[in-house]
Amino acid sequence: MLPYEHIIIIDKKSKVPIYRQIAISIINAIRNGTLKAEMRLPSSRELAKILGVHRKTIIKGYEELDAQDWIMIIPRKYVAVSEHIPLLKPKKWGEPNVLRPYESNLNIPFRVIEENTIDKKDISYPEIIIDDGHPDVRLSPIDDLLKTYRALTSKKYAIKNANIGTAQGTLKLRQELVKYLSLTRGLNISEDNILITHGAQMSIYLAAQLLLRRSSNIIVGKPNYPIANKTFEEAKANIIEITVDDKGIDTDVIEKTCKRKKIDAVYVIPHHHYPTTVTLSVERRMKLLELSKQFSFVIIEDDYDYDYHYTSSPYLPLASSNHNGNVIYIGSFSKLLDPALRIGFMVAPKNFIDQCTAFRKIIDVGGDGYMQNALASIIKEGELKRHLKKAKKCYHERRDFLDALLKEKLGQYISYNLPTGGMAVWIKLNDGFSVEQLQLNESLQIVRFDYELNSFRFGFASMNEQELQSAVNAIEKMIVKV
Amino acid sequence: MLPYEHIIIIDKKSKVPIYRQIAISIINAIRNGTLKAEMRLPSSRELAKILGVHRKTIIKGYEELDAQDWIMIIPRKYVAVSEHIPLLKPKKWGEPNVLRPYESNLNIPFRVIEENTIDKKDISYPEIIIDDGHPDVRLSPIDDLLKTYRALTSKKYAIKNANIGTAQGTLKLRQELVKYLSLTRGLNISEDNILITHGAQMSIYLAAQLLLRRSSNIIVGKPNYPIANKTFEEAKANIIEITVDDKGIDTDVIEKTCKRKKIDAVYVIPHHHYPTTVTLSVERRMKLLELSKQFSFVIIEDDYDYDYHYTSSPYLPLASSNHNGNVIYIGSFSKLLDPALRIGFMVAPKNFIDQCTAFRKIIDVGGDGYMQNALASIIKEGELKRHLKKAKKCYHERRDFLDALLKEKLGQYISYNLPTGGMAVWIKLNDGFSVEQLQLNESLQIVRFDYELNSFRFGFASMNEQELQSAVNAIEKMIVKV
Repeated sequence: MLPYEHIIIIDKKSKVPIYRQIAISIINAIRNGTLKAEMRLPSSRELAKILGVHRKTIIKGYEELDAQDWIMIIPRKYVAVSEHIPLLKPKKWGEPNVLRPYESNLNIPFRVIEENTIDKKDISYPEIIIDDGHPDVRLSPIDDLLKTYRALTSKKYAIKNANIGTAQGTLKLRQELVKYLSLTRGLNISEDNILITHGAQMSIYLAAQLLLRRSSNIIVGKPNYPIANKTFEEAKANIIEITVDDKGIDTDVIEKTCKRKKIDAVYVIPHHHYPTTVTLSVERRMKLLELSKQFSFVIIEDDYDYDYHYTSSPYLPLASSNHNGNVIYIGSFSKLLDPALRIGFMVAPKNFIDQCTAFRKIIDVGGDGYMQNALASIIKEGELKRHLKKAKKCYHERRDFLDALLKEKLGQYISYNLPTGGMAVWIKLNDGFSVEQLQLNESLQIVRFDYELNSFRFGFASMNEQELQSAVNAIEKMIVKV
Repeated sequence: MLPYEHIIIIDKKSKVPIYRQIAISIINAIRNGTLKAEMRLPSSRELAKILGVHRKTIIKGYEELDAQDWIMIIPRKYVAVSEHIPLLKPKKWGEPNVLRPYESNLNIPFRVIEENTIDKKDISYPEIIIDDGHPDVRLSPIDDLLKTYRALTSKKYAIKNANIGTAQGTLKLRQELVKYLSLTRGLNISEDNILITHGAQMSIYLAAQLLLRRSSNIIVGKPNYPIANKTFEEAKANIIEITVDDKGIDTDVIEKTCKRKKIDAVYVIPHHHYPTTVTLSVERRMKLLELSKQFSFVIIEDDYDYDYHYTSSPYLPLASSNHNGNVIYIGSFSKLLDPALRIGFMVAPKNFIDQCTAFRKIIDVGGDGYMQNALASIIKEGELKRHLKKAKKCYHERRDFLDALLKEKLGQYISYNLPTGGMAVWIKLNDGFSVEQLQLNESLQIVRFDYELNSFRFGFASMNEQELQSAVNAIEKMIVKV
């Protein structure tokens, strides 16, 4: 008889029931060829004795193996390995019959995505994290949102219908957005012009995949939101970088470029450009729209940061002008409510929305219909508007508090333009100081650096005054040290 | 003076404040060339008179336009359109200066995703929907999940950290899954082998995009989960269909195919194959693993329906065997908790998970960290296990109830094999009857048909006995009618 005490490994401390451990051991022994087709197994009585467990445990294990066709039980006669098991080379003796860890390498060739080293860096959990511009979830009406979610999951009607047809986003949320985007952004759209996504990035990905191909040219700002560039690279497009100055991306250079070669798309962040926080000026907005008609390119307008303006109203989006159907408008609720809440939207001509919806089904079927309907409710009931008002006041104060702090503590080392809105300040270190120095502290982590411009983003919205103070103090210590 | 009463449109019923409506009208008039650079505007007093509104309203509107640089206000002298506005051709007179609806066509060429007509069909909201196998969210511990979510968003630590580093999924959920997948599926993995996705479909998409290219060959079952096929088409791979019989996909045919040409991947649904509900037999599982080693192909194991087995334990996944790092294992929590809750996972060798994580950042940055940590909590506290036990019992009863109903009411029109688990029955109509007849009822909608096989999926898990009865009665009426 085979040495079953070595073939069957029982770990009494494991949470896996013993009968199951026995079954798994036998399956593994069959799988690796130790036990071959039609080979007799010990009777339950014998095996119980060998393993020192109750006979009923063995019977239960055998029954499970039988139900799954690994073995056959001939009552009152014998138990044997199933006759259907293919012939395998047995593994070497002495090799322990334990569960092997999952292989750490897939050995079939596959495509490699190149990452910037900065993105690859593991996020540890230091005391202070300076993010690149996140809202403060402590202020967010997340409680109301989740209360509504719970109510929706207990309604009979919602139950049957949240499951399906949500690739484009629930009708309820799209209808609410038609009103919301008209009020806040002057967009005159219908629910057919809207696709609900998992956030601004997904909208960029969908647009890039459908618009761009190997021969496409897309213009972006320099610097630019780095993940957007990677998204256009993934679509194999040729990326043309045009400098962003204090009025935004330079439209004169865009015009010259369009005269030299066919441009398919221009990606712009018109409010609080990432990372520089610059807002695109009125004249350049109008120029860009004109160029888009003249040279037939799509404007991908990433307006992720529309909602936070402190000292003036926001500009109306390019998408709200007469644009001959050349603008794809992208927005997000993650910056409004909770950075973890992955709900954003794309506004575009219907024919494009339809294709993005079809494509989106392939990527991830759709979003969470309950969460979408809960969001629709808090928009409808005015909760979102009230929140925004409160949050705007608070972030405005935090921006000014940070401004004073920076001037007082770091004035001699840095320069910046205080943005009129948004959730971050773009800070440049003066000559003689380097942002690399700011990475040497274990208790402080800054999420977004630009080495070339010797600058970093200081997201102020998610921190209260005390937290802002600690963060600035930590930076001060690191700079002074040099 | 221009006819400002026609240029500025005020809608007193609108929720947009009047000063803003005035500002928007003037912006639109500047944008479309009616108002040109440096053109004088009426004084606030004049314009108030023309429009019949209070002068303060005009001043507020002008101030906003000034802050945004559309106009310039020279105090006590005049108000004029900004000098920076580019020269535009004015629009035709008589054309009303109202907000134009968003264009319904994007006029720049873009890629079109081909959809099956069946998927394109709009979901109306009939009384009875027979889904293709969804859980009943009324049984789900969704309340506990949301309660935990709320608690997490109010914790200081969680606040700072839910924002970032969630492309691969939160560490907490991945650590919990290491234990959970070991206990339930015999997988011996670490948190580096796991990527949290928005569900099984996203895992398939990621795998397909990284594994397949134009020259790749992938084997799938016939019939197959249709969105999987579209996903492989999207990756430009050549799809080879191999028949699924009552033991699952035919591995002898796979072997023959591998001898003829280079196969890169095989996509299998080993438990309750979609749509047929067939489970892959033990001998074919072993054969498939052997072939994968011999011919070096990846097995994409879509085990979306692992958790529901009524009359026997599930087979251990192919991924739990010794597979030389050739298996990518895909699972989902949407089938367990709530079809709207978009959380799934991929288990694969670390080098592949790393690349999928990098790719996933480009698609949608990451998932909802709070929801992931809330799920981790209910797994840890045993809530998920208790739910699963309760749900399994309930769905088992519903399956048997439906079985009896089908035999009694529809026995003469249909045939099916009662599945040992899962959430749906695959029903074939006898000769002389056609599934097309089942689409003619307005109050009943069946989500998944197969015309070629004259069959449809009857998802029973989401319906209580009364609902099952109504659904079968509705089908009976439609069949008898013919």
